[in-house]
Amino acid sequence: MTDTVVSSQTREVVLGLERPFVMIGERINPTGRKILAAEMAAGNFSRVEADALAQVTAGAHMLDVNAGIPLADEPAILARAVQLVQSITDVPLSIDSSIVKALEAGLAVYKGKPLVNSVTGEEERLESVLPLVKKYGAAVVAISNDETGISEDPDVRFEVARKIVNRAADHGIPRSDIVVDPLVMPIGAINQAGRQVMHLLNRLKHELKVNTTCGASNVSFGLPAREGISATFLSMAIGAGLTSAIMNPMHLEIVRACMAADVMMGHDADCARWIKRFREAPPLQASGAAASAPEGAARGRREGGHRRRAQGPV
Amino acid sequence: MTDTVVSSQTREVVLGLERPFVMIGERINPTGRKILAAEMAAGNFSRVEADALAQVTAGAHMLDVNAGIPLADEPAILARAVQLVQSITDVPLSIDSSIVKALEAGLAVYKGKPLVNSVTGEEERLESVLPLVKKYGAAVVAISNDETGISEDPDVRFEVARKIVNRAADHGIPRSDIVVDPLVMPIGAINQAGRQVMHLLNRLKHELKVNTTCGASNVSFGLPAREGISATFLSMAIGAGLTSAIMNPMHLEIVRACMAADVMMGHDADCARWIKRFREAPPLQASGAAASAPEGAARGRREGGHRRRAQGPV
Repeated sequence: MTDTVVSSQTREVVLGLERPFVMIGERINPTGRKILAAEMAAGNFSRVEADALAQVTAGAHMLDVNAGIPLADEPAILARAVQLVQSITDVPLSIDSSIVKALEAGLAVYKGKPLVNSVTGEEERLESVLPLVKKYGAAVVAISNDETGISEDPDVRFEVARKIVNRAADHGIPRSDIVVDPLVMPIGAINQAGRQVMHLLNRLKHELKVNTTCGASNVSFGLPAREGISATFLSMAIGAGLTSAIMNPMHLEIVRACMAADVMMGHDADCARWIKRFREAPPLQASGAAASAPEGAARGRREGGHRRRAQGPV
Repeated sequence: MTDTVVSSQTREVVLGLERPFVMIGERINPTGRKILAAEMAAGNFSRVEADALAQVTAGAHMLDVNAGIPLADEPAILARAVQLVQSITDVPLSIDSSIVKALEAGLAVYKGKPLVNSVTGEEERLESVLPLVKKYGAAVVAISNDETGISEDPDVRFEVARKIVNRAADHGIPRSDIVVDPLVMPIGAINQAGRQVMHLLNRLKHELKVNTTCGASNVSFGLPAREGISATFLSMAIGAGLTSAIMNPMHLEIVRACMAADVMMGHDADCARWIKRFREAPPLQASGAAASAPEGAARGRREGGHRRRAQGPV
């Protein structure tokens, strides 16, 4: 089994099929967050700091740091954000930019072995990002699209992933330092997106033998009760071999799904982490009445009626 | 693909790999419910009636009806319960008993084509239940244990399932009327139980080509926040090919998982059922503070930060 190791100065995190699932907090990202973008551009990182601490408290094992602000000095802002986040948390980071100079600025100040987010199968991107990954001894997210865009055919995406792995090898980067993103499309727009990803994850696991990640929130784009879709997507994808995700750890339903998936995969020995976190937890409920079961029904509820086959009554 | 059709007088439900997942309500079962058991034994079916209606309202497509009360006249009580439930709902039923005479009493009064729950690989059970299933033209749950008990080896369980399918064929019952229960063990006791079930579901889907069900609540037996484990188990199992489950539809987190799984499998065209049910739904939250993320963090939350790869900002 392939293990991918990333680290901060003091903490190592390992992605692998026989390892607990790695939750990468997505929130330090000004895309679509006007206030955060303005603050970061003005040199105010208080919200970045709060987001970092809150995500780690909520259960994130790594944090993605992105400083994509139009017209701003992204390399300088990304480097500053990386340094700040590393000064207040000990989790490894994913340094996230579409600008190669920003990736390099982040890498130059990073302490430990980060994940670089990302390289694609595009020639220009391959030949600019991979040398950086090699130079700094990082791991890298490989996104399975190329000059032709994102194929709806998962087998085409698989070939793009294979090409990136092979090119990385040419640069002296081992397959264990490549984390493939199969690209998760919004299921509301492409109803077969879930089947596509499961098929691709299966091939990535068995044939390419690489670790995987994805932007999990994307799957539920445009739908109501998004966190319910994301939680089930992550459960299914982990069952199919997904080993990490860039996701929102502030939704309890989603964190529960990932931790429950570790239990189901046999990666939480004696369910110890589950029990520790949820020993006193009340049931999740809709915060209003709209989605609830009828009142009278809920009062009489009981768990586990069908258990007689394996156990007697409690 | 194999379709299994069951029906009431007026409604047909179809289990199949290319069909929406079938939720079978588990609550009409006196096992471990002392008050319900006493009431049913005394001829008071008001709670059965309430449980039936509440489960259908919550989303159950079928209902399991069990009358296993020690020292009571189970055949008469089961028949009465079946008639009552059929008089107030139109969903097909699963007639559930370990006593063959009770199954026969239920079958004799049932209107439509029910699911008989269950036959095992035990000789005596095979030769008493299968003729009944044939006589009444029912479908049947096949539980993958035999005289030697429940094997921890999923491949042994697969062979038991195959034996039941073959024996049923000898009785003139087609494979499409067999719904195999792979047997879900409590994950708190057997940490590999999840992997075992996924492996077995995969073989049942590809090799035996049968529909499947299970007592889903069993997986979380003894753990805190059971509904979180059950929801993720069902998501993963549906991804691996599970086509129905006997489960508790009164837990919103669990129903959401099954409906989200339909979305992910491409079995909810244009996400129409999801949108209809959850359009106005608030996020699920812990009903107390114990499992919540920090207050300050939760206030600032936002969904979908990583979506820029497929979509621009909202």
